[in-house]
Amino acid sequence: MNRVYNFSAGPSMLPMPVLQRAADELLCYGDSGMSVMEMSHRSADYEPIIADAEAMLRKLMNIPDNYKVLFLQGGASTQFAAIPLNLIGRTGKADYAVSGQFSGKAFKEAQKMGYDVKCIATTKDDNFDHVPVITKDMIRPDAAYLHICFNNTIYGTKYPYIPDTGDVPLVADLSSCIISEPVDVSKFGVIYAGAQKNMAPAGLTLVIVREDLLDYADPKMPTMLEWKTMAENGSMYNTPPCYTIYMAKLVYEWILSLGGLDVMKEMNVKKANLLYDYLDSQDYYIAPVKKESRSLMNVTFVTGDAELDKKFAKEAAAAGLKNLKGHRSVGGMRASIYNAMPYEGVEALVAFMKDFAANNPKA
Amino acid sequence: MNRVYNFSAGPSMLPMPVLQRAADELLCYGDSGMSVMEMSHRSADYEPIIADAEAMLRKLMNIPDNYKVLFLQGGASTQFAAIPLNLIGRTGKADYAVSGQFSGKAFKEAQKMGYDVKCIATTKDDNFDHVPVITKDMIRPDAAYLHICFNNTIYGTKYPYIPDTGDVPLVADLSSCIISEPVDVSKFGVIYAGAQKNMAPAGLTLVIVREDLLDYADPKMPTMLEWKTMAENGSMYNTPPCYTIYMAKLVYEWILSLGGLDVMKEMNVKKANLLYDYLDSQDYYIAPVKKESRSLMNVTFVTGDAELDKKFAKEAAAAGLKNLKGHRSVGGMRASIYNAMPYEGVEALVAFMKDFAANNPKA
Repeated sequence: MNRVYNFSAGPSMLPMPVLQRAADELLCYGDSGMSVMEMSHRSADYEPIIADAEAMLRKLMNIPDNYKVLFLQGGASTQFAAIPLNLIGRTGKADYAVSGQFSGKAFKEAQKMGYDVKCIATTKDDNFDHVPVITKDMIRPDAAYLHICFNNTIYGTKYPYIPDTGDVPLVADLSSCIISEPVDVSKFGVIYAGAQKNMAPAGLTLVIVREDLLDYADPKMPTMLEWKTMAENGSMYNTPPCYTIYMAKLVYEWILSLGGLDVMKEMNVKKANLLYDYLDSQDYYIAPVKKESRSLMNVTFVTGDAELDKKFAKEAAAAGLKNLKGHRSVGGMRASIYNAMPYEGVEALVAFMKDFAANNPKA
Repeated sequence: MNRVYNFSAGPSMLPMPVLQRAADELLCYGDSGMSVMEMSHRSADYEPIIADAEAMLRKLMNIPDNYKVLFLQGGASTQFAAIPLNLIGRTGKADYAVSGQFSGKAFKEAQKMGYDVKCIATTKDDNFDHVPVITKDMIRPDAAYLHICFNNTIYGTKYPYIPDTGDVPLVADLSSCIISEPVDVSKFGVIYAGAQKNMAPAGLTLVIVREDLLDYADPKMPTMLEWKTMAENGSMYNTPPCYTIYMAKLVYEWILSLGGLDVMKEMNVKKANLLYDYLDSQDYYIAPVKKESRSLMNVTFVTGDAELDKKFAKEAAAAGLKNLKGHRSVGGMRASIYNAMPYEGVEALVAFMKDFAANNPKA
């Protein structure tokens, strides 16, 4: 077995101890006589798994009691529709900040569905090289919510603060930064995240929603997208993605064993600093993101020469540093350094970058 | 490791060779240097996996070229909403046959969403102990589709024939009988199925849809529920449930290695006959389903005494025959004997039933 360093933006690396335990338990979990993959979601064997997953996540994120935790399917993209369907009934209109491709998709989805939505801020004209400044006075006071994408995977940006939205609930996509550092859940109305970056394999979507926001669902909406229905049924209105929830539980357990999100943040800052410090120390590679908007999870850089970028990604992959090619919509390189990426992986990347720069002088 | 016989209705048993291979490959797949759980869905490592899954399923089910195969999330329950959202625009109305709880839920979902839907047949008054007779003249000629649930997991019934719906597309939930025996796909407009009974762990939903039915979607519907969008993007409009698709591929491969669906049917008939023949040969247990509607996959029976039923399920579990308790809405016992249940499991069940009857005489 020759494991690589996988810089994929998602699905992405999982911690080795988690994978090892999943492999060990795959044929037979405890004394259940079966794989977790085979367990009825309503069985005494499975119930503690989903209950522990929720309890561990609540502990990890310090989720207040008046928030529901939902384990769903369909990805963040399904939530782009679920959000207005569940919430816009509160006032009939909603505001969006567009800081990249996914927040743009969330906005367009609500528009397509015929809702009164307004883009209150965007950094599109700057190629999303930073996140917009959001102040309370920019938000319509009667907006049902303000939607943001907290960390922008494709561009490598992140809000350096939680916007103050006053009485308007803040709805945030945390897909690519969830459980990478502590976050004050009480400042959000809704947090949602696809699991396939920092939490589990693809196929699980986490929604954390303040209880008072469960009462505005469109009565004609698809039942499976109704947060309230899912909350009332403990995420088991139908069969949940049981095995992926088990994998998430193993990841939560791993983080708790390391000391929780403060420790995780420390580790992530150390990794990101290694890479950003190198980027700032030289001029072969350009880091396009404005410093104050830099993501802790996704680090983008370019050589300024598309052919060299291509060569970089190809040679890096051959050297065991995979999936460094930037998103197809922006090009260049992107190193996603989620929780499971070891420090040694970033060290290896920086060493490779130095070699590549030395071996490929620009004209 | 002491594996039990797991008669769960779903999630349910997976074939041992499939689980063994998944365990062997869990830390590192081929020469990719990573787990399938960690692969980017758009990587050269993953692409052959989803492509093979589709190719193998097409071969297994002999799916005609004018049908699209979609690997989705959300379960059959999400399709209860997706079906009218995608199809009812064809004529503005749709017909349903209600043969159990899930077809009832599908019907109610379309009703709740405000559509003109009609229940053309139901066996509710007979406690769903058989499936309704459906003839062409019962269906509204201008119905956008007729929806049926082909195998009713909870009651243990199955249509013994594919209803002739004339020009009205037949939409069928095959969640609990998919790939258990050959089925003529060309007789259906849409086949859909949750994977967690016969195909894979929970978290994957299969939709097989005739191409000419992709053009009627409600323009305001959630994009993630649009079959056309998913078809145009090869099930990758967003991140698919990659690992669960890989598990499905391993299951398809296993069935192909055994000889395909003809062989699978032969094995399933042999298993079901063992159980039904025993039920028909004695009078301690009652099999409530009318013979012509008997399911090959889910076999229901009762002792006629709720306390004895409870004792049966408890003692069976202790003897390594788990999850024989009937669905909470109907009680009694249910043995789900999907593809992965070995013949020996049904032998063990029948032996246990004989012992239990001998040891627990009725008053």
